[in-house]
Amino acid sequence: MDTFETIKKRYSFRGSYKNTPVPREDLKKILEAGIAAPSGCNKQTTSFIALDDPELIGAITSFVKKNGFSGSNPPAGICVLTQKIQSYADKYFYIQDYSAAIENMLLAITALGYVSCWIEGQVTEAAETQNQIAKLLNVPADYTVVGFLPVGAAETEGNRPSYKPFEKRAWFNKFGKDH
Amino acid sequence: MDTFETIKKRYSFRGSYKNTPVPREDLKKILEAGIAAPSGCNKQTTSFIALDDPELIGAITSFVKKNGFSGSNPPAGICVLTQKIQSYADKYFYIQDYSAAIENMLLAITALGYVSCWIEGQVTEAAETQNQIAKLLNVPADYTVVGFLPVGAAETEGNRPSYKPFEKRAWFNKFGKDH
Repeated sequence: MDTFETIKKRYSFRGSYKNTPVPREDLKKILEAGIAAPSGCNKQTTSFIALDDPELIGAITSFVKKNGFSGSNPPAGICVLTQKIQSYADKYFYIQDYSAAIENMLLAITALGYVSCWIEGQVTEAAETQNQIAKLLNVPADYTVVGFLPVGAAETEGNRPSYKPFEKRAWFNKFGKDH
Repeated sequence: MDTFETIKKRYSFRGSYKNTPVPREDLKKILEAGIAAPSGCNKQTTSFIALDDPELIGAITSFVKKNGFSGSNPPAGICVLTQKIQSYADKYFYIQDYSAAIENMLLAITALGYVSCWIEGQVTEAAETQNQIAKLLNVPADYTVVGFLPVGAAETEGNRPSYKPFEKRAWFNKFGKDH
């Protein structure tokens, strides 16, 4: 799929997923897109666990549902991990790193014809949830669980949120100028 | 350009740019890619100023060079702004928001045949630099300058950094497992 088409097509899906499995080769392409994202000083602070085991996915979905996530169990998903490594001096860029990696993966998911949603607040707002997921997936203590991306085909298409108009968010050469 | 090809082709360019101007229609496509990125609770905290005025670009380049940025003046660029707006409760996602928008724009830049580099540390490590850029571009006080992306054609192609192997960063179903 063309890059610009993918960027426009991506949206946060909160509906039901079809049960159709996601092949490992598709999951691998999604992971490779995450790995290819830039990172501050190339520290590569982001790691990924792809999930296609229904028991593990069911457990993670039940954890994030307690924090307000609504949606059916997807057939697959990506758990996003970070290492809070310094880039230089007192600078940390791990949030930027995993965010760029997540965006790459959301685009890859879209390009492959699947839908997803960036689930972060419902993972990180309770240390208990992060610990439950870490324990379930054998994540070592120097890695932090920061997000979960469901992956699957949509049962029915969801709605795109509305966006502020272009001229409220983008300008040329000076703030507020359109030309 | 195909989405996966773009994701693989994107890299941080630190060499010299050709003087060839970047048409406004290309800059608009890049800005639209930034706008299309997801944001926490759809707060749309990121804004953008596209630059094609050589004087403004020269000034910004001189500011970031003082903080260690090396590279020639590009014919165009994108200045990235954020509003530090709460998403919900005590949760802020503006870093995630602008990082996803930056990644979308880096992919758009790549898909259009240009090169770029995510310049953030050299912008944000000195409040003075942020203030100089804000003053230059008439950025209001409730917006923060967080990054600059040069945009242009490469004089000669740069080098991609090396990446850790897949199996050091991505696994299936459990941390450290490849199947």
